[in-house]
Amino acid sequence: MALPHQVKIVEVGPRDGLQNEQAVPLAAKIELVHALAQAGLQVIETGAFVSPKWVPQMADSAAVFSGIERTPGVTYAALTPNLQGFQAAMAVQADEVAVFAAASEAFSQANINCSIEASFERFMPVIEAAQANHIRVRGYVSCVLGCPYQGDVPIADVVRVAEQLWRMGCYEISLGDTIGVGTPLQAQRMLGAVAERVPMENLALHFHNTYGQALANIASCLPLGVATIDSAVAGLGGCPYAKGASGNVATEDVVYMLHGMGIQTGIQLNQLVQAGAAICTHLGQRPRSNVAIAELAKQDRTP
Amino acid sequence: MALPHQVKIVEVGPRDGLQNEQAVPLAAKIELVHALAQAGLQVIETGAFVSPKWVPQMADSAAVFSGIERTPGVTYAALTPNLQGFQAAMAVQADEVAVFAAASEAFSQANINCSIEASFERFMPVIEAAQANHIRVRGYVSCVLGCPYQGDVPIADVVRVAEQLWRMGCYEISLGDTIGVGTPLQAQRMLGAVAERVPMENLALHFHNTYGQALANIASCLPLGVATIDSAVAGLGGCPYAKGASGNVATEDVVYMLHGMGIQTGIQLNQLVQAGAAICTHLGQRPRSNVAIAELAKQDRTP
Repeated sequence: MALPHQVKIVEVGPRDGLQNEQAVPLAAKIELVHALAQAGLQVIETGAFVSPKWVPQMADSAAVFSGIERTPGVTYAALTPNLQGFQAAMAVQADEVAVFAAASEAFSQANINCSIEASFERFMPVIEAAQANHIRVRGYVSCVLGCPYQGDVPIADVVRVAEQLWRMGCYEISLGDTIGVGTPLQAQRMLGAVAERVPMENLALHFHNTYGQALANIASCLPLGVATIDSAVAGLGGCPYAKGASGNVATEDVVYMLHGMGIQTGIQLNQLVQAGAAICTHLGQRPRSNVAIAELAKQDRTP
Repeated sequence: MALPHQVKIVEVGPRDGLQNEQAVPLAAKIELVHALAQAGLQVIETGAFVSPKWVPQMADSAAVFSGIERTPGVTYAALTPNLQGFQAAMAVQADEVAVFAAASEAFSQANINCSIEASFERFMPVIEAAQANHIRVRGYVSCVLGCPYQGDVPIADVVRVAEQLWRMGCYEISLGDTIGVGTPLQAQRMLGAVAERVPMENLALHFHNTYGQALANIASCLPLGVATIDSAVAGLGGCPYAKGASGNVATEDVVYMLHGMGIQTGIQLNQLVQAGAAICTHLGQRPRSNVAIAELAKQDRTP
């Protein structure tokens, strides 16, 4: 066991979460980002600069970036799939950007209408421009434990895509179980294989909870030394491939587990629960976090 | 890693689950027990012989036992806290019985109105009568990872109560995180300590999912060699200490994880999902199983 002493949580609720929910008002998004920073989150994926035709929920990302008051030390990140998106992110002072590739050829074609290879070519100008601007680029790899179109995804394909993004200049590679189908041994094997090509300190887990496995998968990977976890407050964001199912693993549940294991995050759990409850009120739904539901119930605020 | 090749699932939905839900009709309970046996469950806790004043949901347990058609090889178990309950269970041919003690003195007083020591004295006649009838007795220990009244529960207290039940003649000791507050390292340490006094093959995990940790805790304990897991189909049963929160870990989610890890259970997941969906229809609620929700959504039966 080589558990990390500290874990960096990358909060993806305002982006990966809200892009899969009904649209919420600009003011609610800004309030959410503020509440997350106050709860101690150090990295907040704040928006995406993508076509509003494809992702209308993110159409106001520039206004979110312009509207927030920044907490010193917090990284406000943006998803920027192409040069146009990168320039829009720079115009509103995003601190960090991200690109995304798929480990599954079928998913790449269906999701971003191009081959994996062609997606690398599309990211190259983004990475070059970011480096020229001294902006760090994160690389997402989707479908690392399964694909909604092709089913199984060979570990070798995950390793290849992760290594390619790393060699292209991404400083951190986030390994996404996009449809939340993976189980613990599979997650360990995948992470172990990628870590032979990309240093473990530059890897992140981005697990969805569609099949309820996310926390078990994270717990099983922590002893390998991984120390960056992506999650969304209140488990925001459903699954486009299973209507009504869970989305990202809930930040509250991850933080509760890590603290219980003696692993530091710098996050105040109670403030985090309140941040999630507030955005869920805007959405008119219960938090998809068991910790939030239990804590709010104890406070007589049955969600 | 010494993962078991096979895990025995003890399905507690009809008892621990339904005793914390609104009452359902007798026919629905019988249908549930049949569906569970058909899905491949080998041990089904079918009812409880307790005071209907305290647990009205279990008042028809004798009728359930009398009403079911038995599948050969399946163990139909009953909770029997005292000799009167044991005799009632024998009258309807229960295959196995169970007694329950708490690892927390405060919980014992609040839940069964007597000290832990006095509870042992109450169980002794049940165990003696069971042995005379060649009936196996299971021992539950509650609050092994925390107590709603006293908070932390020392591991030494859990070990003492588990060992006492074992020495008194219980063939299997089920370790219950009654309020679902434990986290992986804590669960591992507790199980490891108990296994120094009671053989691992006679221990079971009975984890509730109140804080979303149950599956992560189970995944973390499996490498210690534990091979019996209690769970409830559809995550039936809420938490009396946190209204609206989750109850027992869902059998569907446990089975999905185990199969994904290459561990056999003998259970047909799809039939299990259907069994849970049917009882949830009677209860007018969504399954508290992410696997069930995702699978039903894929079948266009959004729960």
